[in-house]
Amino acid sequence: MMKTLLKRKPTLEVNLQPIGRRIEVPAGTNLLDAARLAGVELVAVCGGEGTCGTCRLRPVSGQLSPRTLTEEAELSADDLAAGYRLACQAAVLSDVRIDIPPESFTTPQRLQLEGQEIPTELDPLVVPLEIAVPPPSLGDLRSDLTRLRDVLAALGHADLRFSLPVSADLPEKLRANNWRIRLAIRDDEVVAILHPISLVTRHPSLSTLYGLAVDVGTTKLAAYLVNLETGETAAQAGAMNPQIAYGEDVISRITYANEHADGSKILQAKLVEALDHLLGDLCAEANVSRQQVVEAVIVGNTAMHHLFVGLPVKQLGESPYVAAVGEAMQFPASQVGLELAVGAYVYLPPNIAGYVGADHVSMLLGAGGAELFEPRRSEERKGNFNKPSRLRGKTIVALDIGTNTEISLFHAGRHYSCSCASGPAFEGAHISDGMRAAPGAIERVRIEGEKVKVHTIGGGAAVGICGSGILDVVAGLLEAGLLDKRGVLKGNHPNLRVANNTKEFVLTPAERSSIGRELKVTRQDVNEIQLAKGAIRAGIEILLEEAGIEDQDIELFIVAGAFGTYLDLESAIRIGMFPDLPRPRFEQVGNAAGSGARKLLVSKQQRRLADEIAREVNYVELAVHPDFMKIYVKALAFGL
Amino acid sequence: MMKTLLKRKPTLEVNLQPIGRRIEVPAGTNLLDAARLAGVELVAVCGGEGTCGTCRLRPVSGQLSPRTLTEEAELSADDLAAGYRLACQAAVLSDVRIDIPPESFTTPQRLQLEGQEIPTELDPLVVPLEIAVPPPSLGDLRSDLTRLRDVLAALGHADLRFSLPVSADLPEKLRANNWRIRLAIRDDEVVAILHPISLVTRHPSLSTLYGLAVDVGTTKLAAYLVNLETGETAAQAGAMNPQIAYGEDVISRITYANEHADGSKILQAKLVEALDHLLGDLCAEANVSRQQVVEAVIVGNTAMHHLFVGLPVKQLGESPYVAAVGEAMQFPASQVGLELAVGAYVYLPPNIAGYVGADHVSMLLGAGGAELFEPRRSEERKGNFNKPSRLRGKTIVALDIGTNTEISLFHAGRHYSCSCASGPAFEGAHISDGMRAAPGAIERVRIEGEKVKVHTIGGGAAVGICGSGILDVVAGLLEAGLLDKRGVLKGNHPNLRVANNTKEFVLTPAERSSIGRELKVTRQDVNEIQLAKGAIRAGIEILLEEAGIEDQDIELFIVAGAFGTYLDLESAIRIGMFPDLPRPRFEQVGNAAGSGARKLLVSKQQRRLADEIAREVNYVELAVHPDFMKIYVKALAFGL
Repeated sequence: MMKTLLKRKPTLEVNLQPIGRRIEVPAGTNLLDAARLAGVELVAVCGGEGTCGTCRLRPVSGQLSPRTLTEEAELSADDLAAGYRLACQAAVLSDVRIDIPPESFTTPQRLQLEGQEIPTELDPLVVPLEIAVPPPSLGDLRSDLTRLRDVLAALGHADLRFSLPVSADLPEKLRANNWRIRLAIRDDEVVAILHPISLVTRHPSLSTLYGLAVDVGTTKLAAYLVNLETGETAAQAGAMNPQIAYGEDVISRITYANEHADGSKILQAKLVEALDHLLGDLCAEANVSRQQVVEAVIVGNTAMHHLFVGLPVKQLGESPYVAAVGEAMQFPASQVGLELAVGAYVYLPPNIAGYVGADHVSMLLGAGGAELFEPRRSEERKGNFNKPSRLRGKTIVALDIGTNTEISLFHAGRHYSCSCASGPAFEGAHISDGMRAAPGAIERVRIEGEKVKVHTIGGGAAVGICGSGILDVVAGLLEAGLLDKRGVLKGNHPNLRVANNTKEFVLTPAERSSIGRELKVTRQDVNEIQLAKGAIRAGIEILLEEAGIEDQDIELFIVAGAFGTYLDLESAIRIGMFPDLPRPRFEQVGNAAGSGARKLLVSKQQRRLADEIAREVNYVELAVHPDFMKIYVKALAFGL
Repeated sequence: MMKTLLKRKPTLEVNLQPIGRRIEVPAGTNLLDAARLAGVELVAVCGGEGTCGTCRLRPVSGQLSPRTLTEEAELSADDLAAGYRLACQAAVLSDVRIDIPPESFTTPQRLQLEGQEIPTELDPLVVPLEIAVPPPSLGDLRSDLTRLRDVLAALGHADLRFSLPVSADLPEKLRANNWRIRLAIRDDEVVAILHPISLVTRHPSLSTLYGLAVDVGTTKLAAYLVNLETGETAAQAGAMNPQIAYGEDVISRITYANEHADGSKILQAKLVEALDHLLGDLCAEANVSRQQVVEAVIVGNTAMHHLFVGLPVKQLGESPYVAAVGEAMQFPASQVGLELAVGAYVYLPPNIAGYVGADHVSMLLGAGGAELFEPRRSEERKGNFNKPSRLRGKTIVALDIGTNTEISLFHAGRHYSCSCASGPAFEGAHISDGMRAAPGAIERVRIEGEKVKVHTIGGGAAVGICGSGILDVVAGLLEAGLLDKRGVLKGNHPNLRVANNTKEFVLTPAERSSIGRELKVTRQDVNEIQLAKGAIRAGIEILLEEAGIEDQDIELFIVAGAFGTYLDLESAIRIGMFPDLPRPRFEQVGNAAGSGARKLLVSKQQRRLADEIAREVNYVELAVHPDFMKIYVKALAFGL
């Protein structure tokens, strides 16, 4: 059979996730060798002898050689049941898609966690209250809950609600702590019963209330454990979104959910499992029990939001692409299988539209919050104010670039937003040697005369090229006159050549790449960037037109998110993706959605603001905007 | 090994549940023969050849012979995993306790379902609302939930809450029904989305709202499916409480829960499984989908309540025996694993005390409700009222006899209640030939001179004697002068004899019993009844004393529950369990707790009344009452 395959199709594609690297290999190549050919180093302690069991990975689709006796000996029963294979044992018999678990990589993924810390007044929804309750006797037979309620009523807390799990936790907690307990009160409901501080003086942190904030990206997860009583971030951790194995972008996840029985449930379970794992790490790092984690805030785009929550996504994938729920949501964490304090809630900020999700709302909070919406104060206008606000009353663009790029414009007290289909080019997809921003990815390129300088993530040999690297290449080619406005490669350069009837620009010679051949950018790759940057610039221009202003009126241009942090601003301006504003007007703010999620955790005021943002926004649907095509075509041209 | 056992202990006890029949058999007897010896007919189509697989039962404790090849062939994989055996194959090697599933009995159990139907104004918490929602378009991108909310707000239903499961159900329901849906609204929350009546004219019942009411007795379950739009009971069904296999009474269940890891969870799961099964039967009978069952009311004593809900029961088993939760509870049915409409709630009325539970509150509602508490109207007082109220303003005793007997007294606008430890004698336990009220149980006995007439449930040969039968025997012996006030058997009668140094009274000769020997009542049995009736009478007397009144002031004496329905009133009065009131003052009202549960299902006013009952009751704790011992000792004497 292998012979037939070899004859029919000499090479097969191996798609390595979650890093997004693809490689063509001869049929029969084992996955360890395929990964090496792709420049991806897997943990393989025994060097591929099949004796260490470390090069575990999971095939998602396609056909591999049958399981060997070695694999049955080395893999656990759970792993075997889940379909895991050893890379050194499994040979490729068709195009395959492989999910590599984090522990099988030799180098960790780059995960964007840091965002600007903008001080927020501590005003959490969940607050502690420590009380003593009189024990029962034959002369006082009130139920445990009744006697607690009576004490609470005397303290002015009548009518607090107790969910079933919290009620069930009460008898043991009262008796174990000598009838003194610390309650976590969320608005009108008790969500957890903790040990009293007085009994745990040696470990006072065991009584402290914590919250979990997570930015669920299509690609990456960023999780934060926040002390709700001080507002401090006690621990943070990142991970890849395990749903990548089921589809790299939002559309393919929606398709997976629609086309597989229990597809949605599988995607939800994978995500919750990853969050649960992250929470375990965070709690261990901060020496905190899960029972102290009394609230969670989850932000994500509308599809990630719906998949996490368990809302159907079918209608998100069909015109007119509407969300099932736009409003902010809150429900017991146990309803999605997230194990926090017994009565803890999950809160998700509102979605603006099918493709402007809760993560955009959270990003706006993280990048500025209330000041984005406030008019300039009179003293600032007169210029006689010592420190004028960075944001207040200004004309501001804030965007987060991804497969869909969400853009907001604040001007004259109004908020406009849109989503543009920028495509996956900046994620490394649809690019011949593209990959995600993982170790080995070329992230910086400079064309200096005949020299081409590249820098890889981690500094080692090049595996592929990621979004910021491609952006630099296109900007450098333009600067060097090797690319015209229409996207045509031209002129002469030692690295510019014709291959397969198309022009391509070589970035690294074979000996400096880890995949045994040159890495290059093709005409087709340049066109992918052209489409992406055109969509983004057109989105900005449409919002400016809606507000009746021009590029140069933008006083502050906020670029959020991981790609936004690593991209070279000059390159983005050079190719015309961003308008050519004075440089101090740009701010690259990191993971603002994560910062916003943390603010939502500790501030009721921020939650009210989130509702207000979603309610007051002027959402502009580009698909039906009369000027969109005209502006888009104009925005496709490269140049300042 | 069997030989050793035979030598050491020639007979072993086989305890057959849920009917509560015990039998001594030689070691090595198979369970089919043991059941036959106990007079219990099991389904065994093949006559014990091991070829039909019908005599399935489940050992709970004790040792049986190893599983045979026949069993492995005849039993399903699920049955084998759950430990089921075939009665004809399994031999007794120690004292054993066996749980017989309903389908293995040849005759169904007697289940008390009927209660008085007292008309209640239809005022359900959950009501239907049918609405049309405009579909989305590229010009109207509101989320599904937002557009529904907007329509509801326009109809005056702003601020309705939508739980996660209901929100998740919305997109498909809207699209499947051409944007027209029927909502089930519970107070301020939408709990289910049903098909619109307009689309299902051929099956209008598919859009009707139903509710489930269940009386969870320690021994039996009574379930009712009620049409919430008409108040009619659409179907009713009974079953044994499967927890019996883990302990016959409340105390042994609490012990099981405390002493086994996951003991509470197992008891909860068994009960929920049985309720789920009953609901399936009810829905099938009434041709109703589970998705139409939008509310459930569950009533039970405090222990059944806690075990169903998943509240801890440890403190219920230790002095001072307090409930975890006394207040009425309501929570999503999914939290206990009960599959109703996606957002349906379970409601449980309040518990009065550790041993006066929500079922007593429900019984009071079923037996009278608000009228129990209302003062007599002036026209009734003057006697010029056509139909004076049966209840209003009267002095009323209402009780439900069980292992614990809960008693309420209404007098002069006040409500007193207590619980007395009447013990399991009336359930047939602690009685030498006792059993539950199952087919073959002697339920009526008349001693007419030298003749002793007995009547069994089902009319067949006698298997044992149940509570109402024993009550009749004791009353008959007293009447015949064969028993004195102190409980001593005396005098001469052909059926009165001495055996094993103690007197006993023979009820049936061996040839008229199905167990191959005589059935009898012993001096010890009589004493068990004496203790039970003494406790009940003492409870009544204490409440009368608290109210400052006497026996003859009782204007209405309500006897609720299964045993209360079947007992012979004259016998109960003859032995002194009930006071000797004029007979028209007595009412035997059947399963009033079940009637009350149905009222709670269709009436908000009844739920408010339940809260009021629990709040206003004067609970009398007999254990600390200064006069209890004196009154109890007096009440032990047999006689009017």
